[in-house]
Amino acid sequence: MAKTLIFGHKSPDTDTICSALVYADLKKELGTDAEPMRLGPVNKETQYALDHFGVEAPAYMEKVDKDVDDVILVDHNEFQQSVDNINDVRISEVIDHHRISNFETKEPLYFRVEPVGCTATILNKMHKENGVVVSRKNAGLLLSAIMSDSLLLQSPTCTQVDVDAAHELADIAGVDLETYGLEMLKAGADVSDKSAHDLITSDAKEFAMGDAQVQIAQVNTIEPGEIYKDQTAIEEEMKQVINDKNLDLFLFVATGILSNDSDVLALGSAKSNVENAFDVTLDADNRAILKGVVSRKKQIVTKLTETFTSSRSA
Amino acid sequence: MAKTLIFGHKSPDTDTICSALVYADLKKELGTDAEPMRLGPVNKETQYALDHFGVEAPAYMEKVDKDVDDVILVDHNEFQQSVDNINDVRISEVIDHHRISNFETKEPLYFRVEPVGCTATILNKMHKENGVVVSRKNAGLLLSAIMSDSLLLQSPTCTQVDVDAAHELADIAGVDLETYGLEMLKAGADVSDKSAHDLITSDAKEFAMGDAQVQIAQVNTIEPGEIYKDQTAIEEEMKQVINDKNLDLFLFVATGILSNDSDVLALGSAKSNVENAFDVTLDADNRAILKGVVSRKKQIVTKLTETFTSSRSA
Repeated sequence: MAKTLIFGHKSPDTDTICSALVYADLKKELGTDAEPMRLGPVNKETQYALDHFGVEAPAYMEKVDKDVDDVILVDHNEFQQSVDNINDVRISEVIDHHRISNFETKEPLYFRVEPVGCTATILNKMHKENGVVVSRKNAGLLLSAIMSDSLLLQSPTCTQVDVDAAHELADIAGVDLETYGLEMLKAGADVSDKSAHDLITSDAKEFAMGDAQVQIAQVNTIEPGEIYKDQTAIEEEMKQVINDKNLDLFLFVATGILSNDSDVLALGSAKSNVENAFDVTLDADNRAILKGVVSRKKQIVTKLTETFTSSRSA
Repeated sequence: MAKTLIFGHKSPDTDTICSALVYADLKKELGTDAEPMRLGPVNKETQYALDHFGVEAPAYMEKVDKDVDDVILVDHNEFQQSVDNINDVRISEVIDHHRISNFETKEPLYFRVEPVGCTATILNKMHKENGVVVSRKNAGLLLSAIMSDSLLLQSPTCTQVDVDAAHELADIAGVDLETYGLEMLKAGADVSDKSAHDLITSDAKEFAMGDAQVQIAQVNTIEPGEIYKDQTAIEEEMKQVINDKNLDLFLFVATGILSNDSDVLALGSAKSNVENAFDVTLDADNRAILKGVVSRKKQIVTKLTETFTSSRSA
């Protein structure tokens, strides 16, 4: 077992997997005995990226072993999105691009969060700062992460730094940015064989908003409405999770990667917060279209959090 | 009023004041309309540094005005150490070297915490990253912050990065590092004219440890025992704060800058936690000598926090 483990969030996406892999390589290059890990299954989009560049997925881990010296979190900082026994291990570093919440350490650490579209963009910078050249396969992984998190550089979370990094990395990786990115997203957007359970768990994150517990699951697809063919099955899976985790709200977000709109389904006692946050009315099926909303982080979490905390800060 | 305000913690020390001043200059150089502020009086040590390099202290601020766009926190991240209305303002950046606790934002930000001895050390690095040369006076301020936080590079919080930065900055500032540092510390260690109220408030920080509220005040001096000439007056001031803030523990730490030991006074219902944390027995006057303890952050907060949270992580 390595002394330092590097991993991203539960329900791993392409940024989480690729950033863990690439940062482990960088740490090794700099003399740290580091190993990438994952906290859940590899999704189809990520698998496409791994296959394309001939890289194996990190090993799966349920808990951090006792003989591990320290861990590095990439692409997340909120403890409820991390490994279950995160409170028992020493966190030596965090590299992330999300809001900061529910994070605490006893000791100082290296904590680096930047308001860019993707953790991979920060890692690209860190290679330069340390004078380490990004290999062709690692450039491919970092590029995949950026194209995924930014939905082909179209998401409002995407900054000029991400765009510049993507072009740089595409050159090193030897792929056409647009063509490769679209093929990768399409591979991930194929939900035809996904069960209702898969749909609501494959990219789900839990958030503490004020006193409320909120889970938001997102699926990118070509035709969002198609996802709801069997809405009853999806609802039953969601209700199960609401009960198990005592959630106030479970928001399922089906995002059209070509239309850039989201078709959402809201369940739980706080579902009206979705209406307030986005100025929409949920229909009889508890669904609504959020026009132009593609980013969970920048467009959904921010606005929803306000509806749960606005009385506090007023 | 500037659009971006930069400030350190309440009960400002030399790192907090100097880092706010220097980072405001760097941000201006990089095109941001930034202004340094302070949340409390300038102590004697800091005033010595400001006078030596001919710099004016930042303006005092009780609350952040409504017309301010955003704020940057330096040298702290815990909200209870920050400005009272911190929940009402947008935090765009944090540059710090402390543990992370009780910090939360709705949106992603630039958050940079590194496990070095001083915020000024990170700012020295950031000048290089941005290709900005540190001016002579700013080098003097950054050097002062490092010599202060590291107690002349002797504190266990001091890293090789701090030592290297201090030597670099002393060259630019044109001062002898040891001579200047000792004179500055001595100026701050003169407590002869300080009232009991001054002693317990001039460098006080509040911490949430588990469910407990703990305040730790520190005074650096030549002869720690001398501070307690009128211990009754100090105790009365401390009890007042314990009542006002409903504290579980108030620890007053008198640190000898030459001896590198601390003579502490503990009051509050949780005072026995100090005995457990440092394996000492408080005498009849509620005092104990902590041998070799000079760093609140690395030697006191860490150990005390464990005694308040150990049942939780077990």
